[in-house]
Amino acid sequence: MKALIVSGPLFEDSELLVPYYRLLEEGIETQVASLARGAMQGKHGYKVEAVGLADINDQEYHLLLLPGGKAPITLRANSTLLELVGRFMTQGKTVAAICHGPLILASAGVLAGRHLTGVRGIARDIERAGGHYLDERVVVDGNLITSRHPDDLPYFMREIIKRCRS
Amino acid sequence: MKALIVSGPLFEDSELLVPYYRLLEEGIETQVASLARGAMQGKHGYKVEAVGLADINDQEYHLLLLPGGKAPITLRANSTLLELVGRFMTQGKTVAAICHGPLILASAGVLAGRHLTGVRGIARDIERAGGHYLDERVVVDGNLITSRHPDDLPYFMREIIKRCRS
Repeated sequence: MKALIVSGPLFEDSELLVPYYRLLEEGIETQVASLARGAMQGKHGYKVEAVGLADINDQEYHLLLLPGGKAPITLRANSTLLELVGRFMTQGKTVAAICHGPLILASAGVLAGRHLTGVRGIARDIERAGGHYLDERVVVDGNLITSRHPDDLPYFMREIIKRCRS
Repeated sequence: MKALIVSGPLFEDSELLVPYYRLLEEGIETQVASLARGAMQGKHGYKVEAVGLADINDQEYHLLLLPGGKAPITLRANSTLLELVGRFMTQGKTVAAICHGPLILASAGVLAGRHLTGVRGIARDIERAGGHYLDERVVVDGNLITSRHPDDLPYFMREIIKRCRS
């Protein structure tokens, strides 16, 4: 089991670090990737080393996790990432996104008819992309797991780990 | 099962938030306490609401967790906390500390003959308090679980959760 976290500069620190450490605790090999290879800094100043998205073979990974913060605004314009998201969704692999992370799913065009959540400010983006926005701490719709903000992390991670174990 | 996290202003954010969210994920009721009641801010700017230590009945709790950062320097001078630590240790309840957190254990006089770790800079403080310092990502000595820094959090939490389940 291998997990891929994709984010970028100004990620929401806890939404990257809590899942990262939790997946490692579970014994899941976890890789952080970004558009550029190297150290990236979160909104709260934590630094995380990332590999370049272009250097990833996404067929090796079983889980994709998209943290929030300001990073998704930039990431959602990247076609390499949007195509990768499309492959994960088509193949029914687990895709987890929190806060502003689901914006990337909206841009990837994978939300038609799906139920999900995210930070309240992106509810319209989700609806415009054909998704159904629910204001709940975690929404599980098949392979898709979403949450709203850092305080949802316990429930977000509980569902992600449950799916990793099944 | 109830857990008590004790810290204060300028806590190391990830060393408080990662355990806090992880314990909640596990379904463990978790309370954050500090010397003063109210919001306290971490080194990286995260704000956490705490109850006052004086308002806690520590007999209700089964696990004590002490994050690092700058908070332990202040906390280790507080006799209410040092007595609470003494009771947890005497009663064999789980006591977990990370980074600078073990400084509080040194001041509480509970380390004689015990094996533990912490950030490398406090190795001498641990030895002077009668403890044996080990440079390992997690050290489990009976009821005492310790780690060195944020990157040890997956191994720290794995041992804490294992003990909570046993």
